[in-house]
Amino acid sequence: MRVVDLIRRKRDSGELTREEIEQLIAAYTGGDIPDYQMSAWLMAVVLRGMSRAEIAALTGAMLHSGRVLDFSDLPGRKVDKHSTGGVGDKTSLVIAPVVAAGGVKVPMISGRGLGHTGGTLDKLESIPGFNVNLSLANFRRVLETCGCALIGQTAEIAPADKKIYALRDVTGTVESPALICASIMSKKLAEGIDALVLDVKTGSGAFMKKVEDAASLAELLVETGNRMGKNVVALLTDMNQPLGRTAGNAMEAAEAIEALSGGGPADLRELCLELAGWMFYLGERVKTVDEGKKLSAELIASGHAREKFREIVRLQGGDVGVVDDPRRLPRARQTLGVTSPADGYVAGTQCEQLGVACVVLGGGREKKEDTIDPAVGLEFHKRIGDAVQRGEPLCTLHYNAGGRLDEARRLVETAYRIEPEEPKAIPPLVHRVIGA
Amino acid sequence: MRVVDLIRRKRDSGELTREEIEQLIAAYTGGDIPDYQMSAWLMAVVLRGMSRAEIAALTGAMLHSGRVLDFSDLPGRKVDKHSTGGVGDKTSLVIAPVVAAGGVKVPMISGRGLGHTGGTLDKLESIPGFNVNLSLANFRRVLETCGCALIGQTAEIAPADKKIYALRDVTGTVESPALICASIMSKKLAEGIDALVLDVKTGSGAFMKKVEDAASLAELLVETGNRMGKNVVALLTDMNQPLGRTAGNAMEAAEAIEALSGGGPADLRELCLELAGWMFYLGERVKTVDEGKKLSAELIASGHAREKFREIVRLQGGDVGVVDDPRRLPRARQTLGVTSPADGYVAGTQCEQLGVACVVLGGGREKKEDTIDPAVGLEFHKRIGDAVQRGEPLCTLHYNAGGRLDEARRLVETAYRIEPEEPKAIPPLVHRVIGA
Repeated sequence: MRVVDLIRRKRDSGELTREEIEQLIAAYTGGDIPDYQMSAWLMAVVLRGMSRAEIAALTGAMLHSGRVLDFSDLPGRKVDKHSTGGVGDKTSLVIAPVVAAGGVKVPMISGRGLGHTGGTLDKLESIPGFNVNLSLANFRRVLETCGCALIGQTAEIAPADKKIYALRDVTGTVESPALICASIMSKKLAEGIDALVLDVKTGSGAFMKKVEDAASLAELLVETGNRMGKNVVALLTDMNQPLGRTAGNAMEAAEAIEALSGGGPADLRELCLELAGWMFYLGERVKTVDEGKKLSAELIASGHAREKFREIVRLQGGDVGVVDDPRRLPRARQTLGVTSPADGYVAGTQCEQLGVACVVLGGGREKKEDTIDPAVGLEFHKRIGDAVQRGEPLCTLHYNAGGRLDEARRLVETAYRIEPEEPKAIPPLVHRVIGA
Repeated sequence: MRVVDLIRRKRDSGELTREEIEQLIAAYTGGDIPDYQMSAWLMAVVLRGMSRAEIAALTGAMLHSGRVLDFSDLPGRKVDKHSTGGVGDKTSLVIAPVVAAGGVKVPMISGRGLGHTGGTLDKLESIPGFNVNLSLANFRRVLETCGCALIGQTAEIAPADKKIYALRDVTGTVESPALICASIMSKKLAEGIDALVLDVKTGSGAFMKKVEDAASLAELLVETGNRMGKNVVALLTDMNQPLGRTAGNAMEAAEAIEALSGGGPADLRELCLELAGWMFYLGERVKTVDEGKKLSAELIASGHAREKFREIVRLQGGDVGVVDDPRRLPRARQTLGVTSPADGYVAGTQCEQLGVACVVLGGGREKKEDTIDPAVGLEFHKRIGDAVQRGEPLCTLHYNAGGRLDEARRLVETAYRIEPEEPKAIPPLVHRVIGA
């Protein structure tokens, strides 16, 4: 194999064989192919695309670049959920304990905040003491003990993805459905799961702004999962406004605990029941998705889901007191309200901008090395379709350092579109289910 | 400037400003941008193209990455010729002395053989002692003394091109008209010339197989030269068969000396007069190209051109005895004839294959580190349109090491297309002149 020939073939819209892709990825991960050849190949992939067979081969090659976990000796089905990233999405903190409480195992390896989107690990770490950096042996032990474990990416899982992602990040080669698909699926399939529910976000706060782009990514993810022998569905969900009432790590952890306690905002609860319902269905715990949703609601109402979350927090070293009293979570010292400039209705939000505002306050990272302030964030008072009066609060900024407050405020102020007329259509929470 | 933003913009078919291109090239040449970002940008350029303004900016940035020679204090116009590369093209060795003998200065910086094509430097070095590695100070001295100097690329000239070309070579980013244009023109414009004649080859032995591709590259080169304030014309010349009677370094040097002595094959002589005629015209030595051709023929007939070549060889340390007796050049020990398999006519040649056969015999390089055997090569007995009888020699292989002789023989045998009927059209030597 001459690497330059593989680059040229892809550049000229040709197809690579499974063997060629396997050799390419193995050689790159092993340090036998320099970054400059890989980045040229990646750019050719971005601009020429890959066939479904190539994407499956790439996913497989990245998956097998590291350890593939095997929990087949543990009783019961193992199911995970993965979201493509949004603003205010704290569903993992709710559904992982719900599904585990219902007897389906959830070995969940999550990510950190990326760009304007939040990350499950950052939210979990806002709980004092919570350790997401378990060894794979401890990951297994926690999973075995309580049916769920929530950890971060480890060096053993899909090292090819780690190396390739770092290169894509600095070479303008992130935005490729083929590469996004291989990156997501190689990591998820390494978790030793039987099935996977994907939450593919679409709208102004998602990476895929257009429903059609999100749908085609979702189809790609589902087909690739199926080709790898896994049961996969994708829910195309709305991200034209934040999910729930908050964005910011500790505030979102508190909101998740609220939802686990039977409260919380309606949209968050609805999406959690939807996703957990599908996980129960794919986990063969129930015969229909509706049954799965009902089971989820029962597990929340009975307190079992919340009890499961307490168990997870305890096993992963976190302060269980937080579960009973979320006010123990870090809280920002100051607040600033952003109010409506006019009477009317919330017609839409520039949701990505709200995510960026949260990052600017210190709730996310602009560079990998940045540290996060878990306490800061945004509190949303109005949703699309809500009536507002001039001067009524739209959003409250919770902050500590005031340095970039003005920038965050401007981002929030310009993120809300207020119109005199009530909007005709309010985006549905779930646009479509793919792969069902 | 964030490099990743420039990569993304080009990836998305956007345009970069002159300042952005200048910063990019300066930073890359200075080692402040890693190869992996540059190769991703280069691949985006290959697949998205560049505007004329971007190409001119890139050419300028590469040109000014190193020294730009200034011979304006030397009397007379300075004119050079550049060929895009072919098989058997030894015109530089003929026309440089012809034009210098006519009083127009020729500061010529040439290249080595690349792929299946030969290089002027390798041909010159087949003359024992001939030194192409002059310092720029000596280059100037020889040019001042005899009106012509023939050297290789130096580290001071367009270092950005050297660095970028090495990267393109291993990342599948060679085949881009924009990058080819910037590479050629940045080096040529650094020579301190007033005008340039381009010989853009097209046909089965050229990098651009199709006339239309060659024409659009030629237009790009001419326009870019004009934007940089130089007088440039491009001759689109035929490379559907080798130029002249030989391919191979010493054999071509001998053939060039024959042409300088008034002999040599008709096609070589015709193209040399054509190119030299244009150089005299752009050098303002004559009023028309025809006058320039006539002057060239006179300078050959009178022996002045050959005398000028002797002077160059002497000044650059070569064995001047070779000019009087080309048999002093290295000669291969053995020959093998390839004959026609049938009666008929030569209908065409796979000319690139003939170039590769020469490389396989040791006359060119497959890798940069390879050493060349100056003695080996091919001798062509028939041209397109010639009648042949079964068993009549088409080509003689001159070789030393027999190791890959079979491979070379097969390449030559399959390169000739013999048809029973006389071909209707014989390709013209010059297809078109662009920029006149």
